[in-house]
Amino acid sequence: MPSKQREIHLANRPEGLPSKEDFEFVELDMPSPEENQVLVRTLYLSVDPYMRGRMRDTKSYIAPFPLNKALIGGAVAEVVESRSELFKPGDVVTGYMKWAEYSVVKGEKIRKVDTSIAAVTAYLGILGMTGLTAYFGLLDIGKPQAGETVVVSGAAGAVGSAVGQIAKIKGTKVVGIAGSDEKIDFLINELGFDHAVNYKKDSFQDNLKAALPDGVDVYFDNVGGEVSDAVINLLNKNARIPLCGAISSYNKEEDIGPRIQPALIKTSSLIQGYTVGNYAAEFEKGSADMAKWLQEGKLKFEETIVEGFDNTPDAFIGLFEGANIGKMLVKVADPEFY
Amino acid sequence: MPSKQREIHLANRPEGLPSKEDFEFVELDMPSPEENQVLVRTLYLSVDPYMRGRMRDTKSYIAPFPLNKALIGGAVAEVVESRSELFKPGDVVTGYMKWAEYSVVKGEKIRKVDTSIAAVTAYLGILGMTGLTAYFGLLDIGKPQAGETVVVSGAAGAVGSAVGQIAKIKGTKVVGIAGSDEKIDFLINELGFDHAVNYKKDSFQDNLKAALPDGVDVYFDNVGGEVSDAVINLLNKNARIPLCGAISSYNKEEDIGPRIQPALIKTSSLIQGYTVGNYAAEFEKGSADMAKWLQEGKLKFEETIVEGFDNTPDAFIGLFEGANIGKMLVKVADPEFY
Repeated sequence: MPSKQREIHLANRPEGLPSKEDFEFVELDMPSPEENQVLVRTLYLSVDPYMRGRMRDTKSYIAPFPLNKALIGGAVAEVVESRSELFKPGDVVTGYMKWAEYSVVKGEKIRKVDTSIAAVTAYLGILGMTGLTAYFGLLDIGKPQAGETVVVSGAAGAVGSAVGQIAKIKGTKVVGIAGSDEKIDFLINELGFDHAVNYKKDSFQDNLKAALPDGVDVYFDNVGGEVSDAVINLLNKNARIPLCGAISSYNKEEDIGPRIQPALIKTSSLIQGYTVGNYAAEFEKGSADMAKWLQEGKLKFEETIVEGFDNTPDAFIGLFEGANIGKMLVKVADPEFY
Repeated sequence: MPSKQREIHLANRPEGLPSKEDFEFVELDMPSPEENQVLVRTLYLSVDPYMRGRMRDTKSYIAPFPLNKALIGGAVAEVVESRSELFKPGDVVTGYMKWAEYSVVKGEKIRKVDTSIAAVTAYLGILGMTGLTAYFGLLDIGKPQAGETVVVSGAAGAVGSAVGQIAKIKGTKVVGIAGSDEKIDFLINELGFDHAVNYKKDSFQDNLKAALPDGVDVYFDNVGGEVSDAVINLLNKNARIPLCGAISSYNKEEDIGPRIQPALIKTSSLIQGYTVGNYAAEFEKGSADMAKWLQEGKLKFEETIVEGFDNTPDAFIGLFEGANIGKMLVKVADPEFY
């Protein structure tokens, strides 16, 4: 085991799209676990759009990242040294961890992953917070009924691709919105979406309307902005909009557009913001359903894996450039023990 | 009984704020009731902001008004001649009727008013659709809990003033937003609101923030636009926004402002459009509660009564200029029989 390891600190609060200069690699002594802690070696880091919000120094559902400290996100890691009775060296665990090559975590804050169900990376995506985000937003807020039409924006992303598949399991017609022909092909031919529309085409609005002859009953929104403006014009009466993300606005200081209130009044529609943490009491049921559907072959998942800890900032920045299909991950190291 | 009577027809689809030229007074022969119909003489007409939406030729929850036909709205009238076994001459009834001095209506579409509970005009306001609009939006969507803070826009209007009083009955702190010092005084000193803020003052945003040290748990929105932008910046976690109206936008072809999705995500807040018709199955319970509270002295109501059928278009236009405190009505005639 080396005597030093590196962490990635937030060096500046980004203005607009984050740049590499906003991140600083800092070399530190290898940490030691205290009582009930474990030392872990990071295998995979999850990079997620919501983390952009935490880089801003404003009140939100979660505290801002402090400057000049390690960023924290979802991770899969291998236990190297354990002072917790819950874990032993070689265990593969998941939880929120530092963007670091090695780190010390409390035993009660992490959990072992069951590699008999799926590869370890699935626990950062379809079997982790990402999958649960799709599950609870779609089912609890969207309440899709068989025969209804569900539209998903950011459809080729980690959350969106899970949403569309769960919506298909529930017997709905699913239309995805994404930003490249490759993603459109993936949604239709790999994931079984009924239609998918490329929002970067000039004909987007017409294409969207053509794909939605029966209007929109549920709009699962990951992106906000003009894409959402277009969908909101096509809502049916009593439509439901689970509001999961607004990635189009995360790098903007100001986000101006048509006010949506008149459309919501006309259609008696509901829009509800949420974060997966709201559903912590129901994680067990959600996780069980997702694992079952995965094992039954009803859910597929795709990953975009960036190799190397050094490339973590690039992977994060790429989220805002549509660089990923499915879950964006950084592979930091291969496991040594298992 | 005269042999002629007048109706007000929609002559043009208004652009922007309606003008008198958009309305045409048409003299017609006195109509005769057929089997199961009654001939009524209009006593009071209700003018309501939602009617502006029906003057537009676009899809909404309710069909557009046709051109060159009588407008239709809430009314109180006196039965002159009855071919329905449900009514006899002299009965005072309420329902949706033509903007006309006399009209023929189906017996099953109207109901008698109980003048022992309140004056007949109350059935166009606090005991009618207006009161039920306040009741269901606030209670079913807003779900106010004792000790929470409820903000109401358009607070001195017919719906808003009922909302604030129901919110007080439910034990919340109530802050109203209105557009004149006279209205602010009315809200605080007549209706018992905890605070009220004048949105036409330059210091509106600061005053609003000062009135809301504990943030906003429920925002009952009648107006939309910049007033709502300001409130949405102050939402607490899990806030609820019953979206009843957007009067600030009704005369605009385009309504642009800051997108609200990021604020809803940050706070896990809900916004839901509705119309009172969604709750038709529960009208009986709502009406009973409202009548009980009125009789107990827990609800007060104010009316702005414009005299004379000729002034109906002015009364309607005045809604968009903040001319009313409480319910805006037109007195068309005195009853003859009761």
